[in-house]
Amino acid sequence: MTVHTASTAAPPAAPTPSPTAAVLAAHPRATTDADARKAAATDRSGYVPATIPDGVVVAQSVDDVVDLLRLAQAQHVPVVPRGAGTGLAAGASARAGEIVLDVSRMNRILAIDPVEMIAVVEPGVLNAEVNAAASQHGLFYAPDPASTAICSIGGNIATNAGGMWCAKYGVTRESVLGLAIVLADGRILRTGRKTIKGVTGYDLNALFIGSEGTLGVVVEATLRLRPKPVRTETLAAYFPNIEAAGRAASAITAARIQPSILELMDGPTLEAVDQAEGTGHRELGGAFLLAQTDGYGAHLELDEIAQAISPYATSVHRAADAAEAEALVKARRDAIPALEKLGRVSIGDIAVPRNRLAEAFAGLEDIASRTGVRIFSVAHAADGNLHPMLVVDPHEPITEGPAKAALGDMFHLAQRLGGTLTGEHGVGLLKREWVGEEIGETSRSLQQAIKDVIDPGGILNPGKAI
Amino acid sequence: MTVHTASTAAPPAAPTPSPTAAVLAAHPRATTDADARKAAATDRSGYVPATIPDGVVVAQSVDDVVDLLRLAQAQHVPVVPRGAGTGLAAGASARAGEIVLDVSRMNRILAIDPVEMIAVVEPGVLNAEVNAAASQHGLFYAPDPASTAICSIGGNIATNAGGMWCAKYGVTRESVLGLAIVLADGRILRTGRKTIKGVTGYDLNALFIGSEGTLGVVVEATLRLRPKPVRTETLAAYFPNIEAAGRAASAITAARIQPSILELMDGPTLEAVDQAEGTGHRELGGAFLLAQTDGYGAHLELDEIAQAISPYATSVHRAADAAEAEALVKARRDAIPALEKLGRVSIGDIAVPRNRLAEAFAGLEDIASRTGVRIFSVAHAADGNLHPMLVVDPHEPITEGPAKAALGDMFHLAQRLGGTLTGEHGVGLLKREWVGEEIGETSRSLQQAIKDVIDPGGILNPGKAI
Repeated sequence: MTVHTASTAAPPAAPTPSPTAAVLAAHPRATTDADARKAAATDRSGYVPATIPDGVVVAQSVDDVVDLLRLAQAQHVPVVPRGAGTGLAAGASARAGEIVLDVSRMNRILAIDPVEMIAVVEPGVLNAEVNAAASQHGLFYAPDPASTAICSIGGNIATNAGGMWCAKYGVTRESVLGLAIVLADGRILRTGRKTIKGVTGYDLNALFIGSEGTLGVVVEATLRLRPKPVRTETLAAYFPNIEAAGRAASAITAARIQPSILELMDGPTLEAVDQAEGTGHRELGGAFLLAQTDGYGAHLELDEIAQAISPYATSVHRAADAAEAEALVKARRDAIPALEKLGRVSIGDIAVPRNRLAEAFAGLEDIASRTGVRIFSVAHAADGNLHPMLVVDPHEPITEGPAKAALGDMFHLAQRLGGTLTGEHGVGLLKREWVGEEIGETSRSLQQAIKDVIDPGGILNPGKAI
Repeated sequence: MTVHTASTAAPPAAPTPSPTAAVLAAHPRATTDADARKAAATDRSGYVPATIPDGVVVAQSVDDVVDLLRLAQAQHVPVVPRGAGTGLAAGASARAGEIVLDVSRMNRILAIDPVEMIAVVEPGVLNAEVNAAASQHGLFYAPDPASTAICSIGGNIATNAGGMWCAKYGVTRESVLGLAIVLADGRILRTGRKTIKGVTGYDLNALFIGSEGTLGVVVEATLRLRPKPVRTETLAAYFPNIEAAGRAASAITAARIQPSILELMDGPTLEAVDQAEGTGHRELGGAFLLAQTDGYGAHLELDEIAQAISPYATSVHRAADAAEAEALVKARRDAIPALEKLGRVSIGDIAVPRNRLAEAFAGLEDIASRTGVRIFSVAHAADGNLHPMLVVDPHEPITEGPAKAALGDMFHLAQRLGGTLTGEHGVGLLKREWVGEEIGETSRSLQQAIKDVIDPGGILNPGKAI
């Protein structure tokens, strides 16, 4: 072999890196560690992905986010934004060929203005951390998912999350005044404002809230805080069955009372909580209703609630003090962890008109007996938002077989009652096939057109939400 | 001249109808009556258009709206949607070459569901009519512009209108659950839902609310009604001057109290109201604060307000009964009509952080003395939303000269205080030149891209809002 021959022949081809590999190699915060990729592949929805993402970028700053999106855009690589990973619709699930953008380390509270009652935070801050900081100034942040201790503000914004207090104080959209968002092309968009009111231009703030990471990546949020109520009153009531409890909840709405919390749990859920926590709710009744009122006349308003539900209840217990009230609220917060001990949990999230709760519960019992899937039901009753929790064996999937059938039936039940597929958890991967049926073709095509104009390369969380 | 010659020569050209004439000729509800066109050329903003629109279509049905938009789309004719014509930003002004789509006769309340607390209405229904109908069921509709008796729900939605009760109950966006909209191409889009909660897909509902008729024409709205408060308490307080009143209002916010109404009026406005109504507010002080609380503990909450403002007030009067309370609220509602007797009124609408109200009032006094324009100020104080009312001679324009300069200065004052150009009236024509400065180029270009994708022909209310 001569030098001449070697120089004219093609050199042995270096393997061309895949587009994701090229992006990951170029980003200083990227990892391809298998455990990190596996941990970032799904959320708490029960969804088990067939593959795992190619890598994870753990952003520490806005620049890290901008850099990743610019690289991904150039290489046409899909990016899945991720907060605390506590989503319930597989909205943050990621697979082979995708890169996860983890913003959980961008977790500083940047400012709290106690006079103006606003907080400016990074997306990775946990919901409970915002409330702890606000609390020091006599304030609170209203959207409080059951997962408050572990879910992050960025994820709350991505799903327009609700919670117990939303009955009175509205969902995430009503508490987010402004956002800073990195768009797919790396530009930074500011939406909203720092004032309570403002109508300059289109409401891009509301458009991005609930868009499940498909339009941009939230890197900063200005949150509205509210004064802590001067007085809070709590009661728990027990009923022979969940239909009676549903009728009682509708009676509160019909009596024109606005509780700050109104939560329902059915008998099987009470049993699971009792088993996990050593409490004794189930022996007091076949369903449980938790009601809280707040404000200067909270005690008077709770009297009205007690009166409205008395025709249906077997017993009504008023909390004597804050500790007793907290124990009652805790029973509701314990529901999901208690069920997770029984198997793989998939949490439904339908919403129906508030006076049709009893019908919804009856329909769920019917679905359970028809599909053979165990369904445990809790509900934010004042909003008509039910969380029917499907529990299957740990090795059973939720995206096929009886669980899938039950999810589909739940959606059609909600639709028949004039309701919706998802009240506060989002569409994610899990509910996507029913979206078109709910919103219709005109809305679906318009949403797709908006997606295409904001993320023309389609790199942001493809296959989710719409 | 022979027959032969005549038949081969081009016949004398019939005048080609203009595109607007072609549309108007084809629509059964069209009129080209000069008075109708003149009446539809502007709103209550004080804006005087140089020309008037070519015609008006008075829609009686959804089909009328669809037909007009299809015809206009085919002929590339701009359409200006119009409700009651009470807008304050020239958002419904129309000029030569444009056709006005008047929906004020689509004014039926289609349904009220007192159990679910929703109303389904056509866009031309007046705000006060919704409240009158809701009232029969112990309910109310929260967004209550000062113009409640004359403004329509469609216009309220187009501007995301506010009002006095918004301090506690939120603006129009928080009370509109769903919409039916005719798009520029005649398709009908349904947004939102009938349930309180729901997060299926992007929040198109919020995108259309406040879009000032530039994205579609609202033909039906599902409104959220709320229980009328069981108890309402009202006080009026007087102050030596508006800065003191502004400090008092900020003290209420700082004391963590949530009034349902908190309205400020300055001395000149009180004088104008007294002149018009024969009342005697001005002799009691140089500024006026109206506060209302509601709910089971309204009396206790009002005690707290009285205490918070006492360091600033010269006198505090609690309303003894509903009639006295109504008289106090009426003083505030009378402000705009009273000023309209003094000249041409242009109503500003800036919003600032709630603790900067006193600075805003001081800045407005400075603008008045610098430009020589008389400025009368009222404010929804709990939201930080000020309405500085410019009064000029009836023959003076508001879009040039000192009035224009004062409007520009007001915007920059709001911006300097961390606020916004428009809290609840919208951008319309009048504030459009400052929008870019407020929202920045990224937001502006994204809003334009959304406009282009939803109304690709650009026929809907061109030149407004964005």
